[in-house]
Amino acid sequence: MLEDKNQKRTSVSELGEFGLIDHLTEHFEITQESTVKGIGDDAAVIDFKDKKAVISTDLLIEGIHFDLSYMPLKHLGYKAVMVNLSDIYAMNAMATQITVSIAASNRFPLEALEELYSGVQLACRNYKVDLIGGDTTSSNKGLLISVTAIGEAKEEDLTYRNGAKENDLLVTTGDIGGAYMGLQILEREKEVFKVNPNNQPDLSPYSYIIERQLKPEARKDIPQLLKELEVKPTSMIDISDGLSSEILHLCKNSNVGCNLFEEKIPLDQQVISTCEEFELNSTTVALSGGEDYELLFTISQEDYPKIKANPHLTVIGHMTALSEGIHLITRANTKIPITSMGWSPFNEDKNNDKND
Amino acid sequence: MLEDKNQKRTSVSELGEFGLIDHLTEHFEITQESTVKGIGDDAAVIDFKDKKAVISTDLLIEGIHFDLSYMPLKHLGYKAVMVNLSDIYAMNAMATQITVSIAASNRFPLEALEELYSGVQLACRNYKVDLIGGDTTSSNKGLLISVTAIGEAKEEDLTYRNGAKENDLLVTTGDIGGAYMGLQILEREKEVFKVNPNNQPDLSPYSYIIERQLKPEARKDIPQLLKELEVKPTSMIDISDGLSSEILHLCKNSNVGCNLFEEKIPLDQQVISTCEEFELNSTTVALSGGEDYELLFTISQEDYPKIKANPHLTVIGHMTALSEGIHLITRANTKIPITSMGWSPFNEDKNNDKND
Repeated sequence: MLEDKNQKRTSVSELGEFGLIDHLTEHFEITQESTVKGIGDDAAVIDFKDKKAVISTDLLIEGIHFDLSYMPLKHLGYKAVMVNLSDIYAMNAMATQITVSIAASNRFPLEALEELYSGVQLACRNYKVDLIGGDTTSSNKGLLISVTAIGEAKEEDLTYRNGAKENDLLVTTGDIGGAYMGLQILEREKEVFKVNPNNQPDLSPYSYIIERQLKPEARKDIPQLLKELEVKPTSMIDISDGLSSEILHLCKNSNVGCNLFEEKIPLDQQVISTCEEFELNSTTVALSGGEDYELLFTISQEDYPKIKANPHLTVIGHMTALSEGIHLITRANTKIPITSMGWSPFNEDKNNDKND
Repeated sequence: MLEDKNQKRTSVSELGEFGLIDHLTEHFEITQESTVKGIGDDAAVIDFKDKKAVISTDLLIEGIHFDLSYMPLKHLGYKAVMVNLSDIYAMNAMATQITVSIAASNRFPLEALEELYSGVQLACRNYKVDLIGGDTTSSNKGLLISVTAIGEAKEEDLTYRNGAKENDLLVTTGDIGGAYMGLQILEREKEVFKVNPNNQPDLSPYSYIIERQLKPEARKDIPQLLKELEVKPTSMIDISDGLSSEILHLCKNSNVGCNLFEEKIPLDQQVISTCEEFELNSTTVALSGGEDYELLFTISQEDYPKIKANPHLTVIGHMTALSEGIHLITRANTKIPITSMGWSPFNEDKNNDKND
């Protein structure tokens, strides 16, 4: 499988007091003009001038949010940043800084933490955000990552969850369900690996969906694209927990109903074929899968001409009066109520994030 | 001991999706003018106008940073906030908002998390900060709290660790060593409790130092006081890891040496008497103890008349040329080099926090 073959192990305690974060972050660069003071004081300092600051935070815990038997540490570091940046972009804001705190048990040598931070660094570079602080400590068990992302936006650009209006169009970016199906493949291969460690699986037919799970990309391009298209969404959220959960959030916060059209949900061909292989309904996967980190937003109908030709954006439904409820309109043209097909944060492998 | 006698246990999963944070935070109020959007969207929004934003973050982990056998959950919530606010005040800034993320195993019922949040809420009220976000998730083992604090300051007020100059005076607020000695008392009573659970110890002779450990207060008053006294510190840090560690930070960042006078270190009478009882050297306790959350700063000598009568402030030394090194001048007038009497984050029960 994807386990680390690197056998060098340096005990973290060899670095001594305060040396660890210095070591892990020495190659990080400051690129944001607003970063006045980064790592190395009691607190970081940020200058937002006349813009609004936007803050989001997430915890990722080994055994709950990730499984290191198939998640390489570098990817984990990258993904932990993506999860948070996605929340900032979902405000129609631009991410500018992050803090990263980790707690690691002594089973993680220095090289493991370096791998993790190399993923954080790659994310910082690709997304042009500055690492400005954090906390590094030991844990009794396992690995934990807590990321806080900070962004900025002009007041008039900020998009909340509560602005959707009746008749607004519901739009998603990208395609949905890939991250969940990638996870199914990885879980299956993990079981195969347990039985036969010498098995060399051919994962190439699943490359896209595995990448969606292991190395998701937050949609930094979307706030920029919307600006270029001169479209201000009326509401927006990122798709971290599956389409149904996010639609319910937008409807609840905006006091509207929604019709979602099954036939419009964008699915990658690998999602469709892997769903067939696993005998899963692809619509159910899209509704409940989660971790796609696409953006879901609503726009006024009059903005439709501006977005209709865009390959990144798909209209998947429209908002209705609150009294009409929230429904999936199936291919057979039947109406099925959308409920929180749900997970509960303390029963299943997901989190309950109010700034999610 | 201090264990919770409340036997009511509501499973957290009963609250269902997204209900937990709603429930835990429903009585929190927004008091800061700069809080544009708090909990309930992808990210919180803060308006700092022409001020600088200041950010700090800390992780607290059960078994590493706290022991629930003597730390009541309400106190833990309170202390987790204090640890972070202290970092903001150490920038000579005012704290304005916090995010609080928790991971809890299923051994924590709803009532336990309510207790924890009641401490967070009390801290928010006492210190006039707004809770604006966070993440709540399950853990495989134990309890973890991650707090990020946000503050603001005018650029000219911000105080870093790197501004101390030769001949500056070294000043501490309050008194030192109490939190560490309080911990010694609590650890001792825990052992007594294991042997004889019916023992009712008289802890009244230790009330101050136990409170220093269980319910520390961050020095919000000091940035205000310094402003009133018209003193701008040349450098500042909070005393989270013991005096020696913080002095080393200031000296390293400012490229200066330091003479610290043993006889000047302010000690409470309970610290002195408890050190005698435990046969510990009180100076060693002050140098290495930690968790006092007082502020340590340097001022220009010409500002001395402004602070000398103040009961909150004690001059404990002065900065020297870098080449003179960093020394403790003992009561017997001998010079002892101050080294990081140290702990290492992955060996002992402390953390390694770059924005600490």
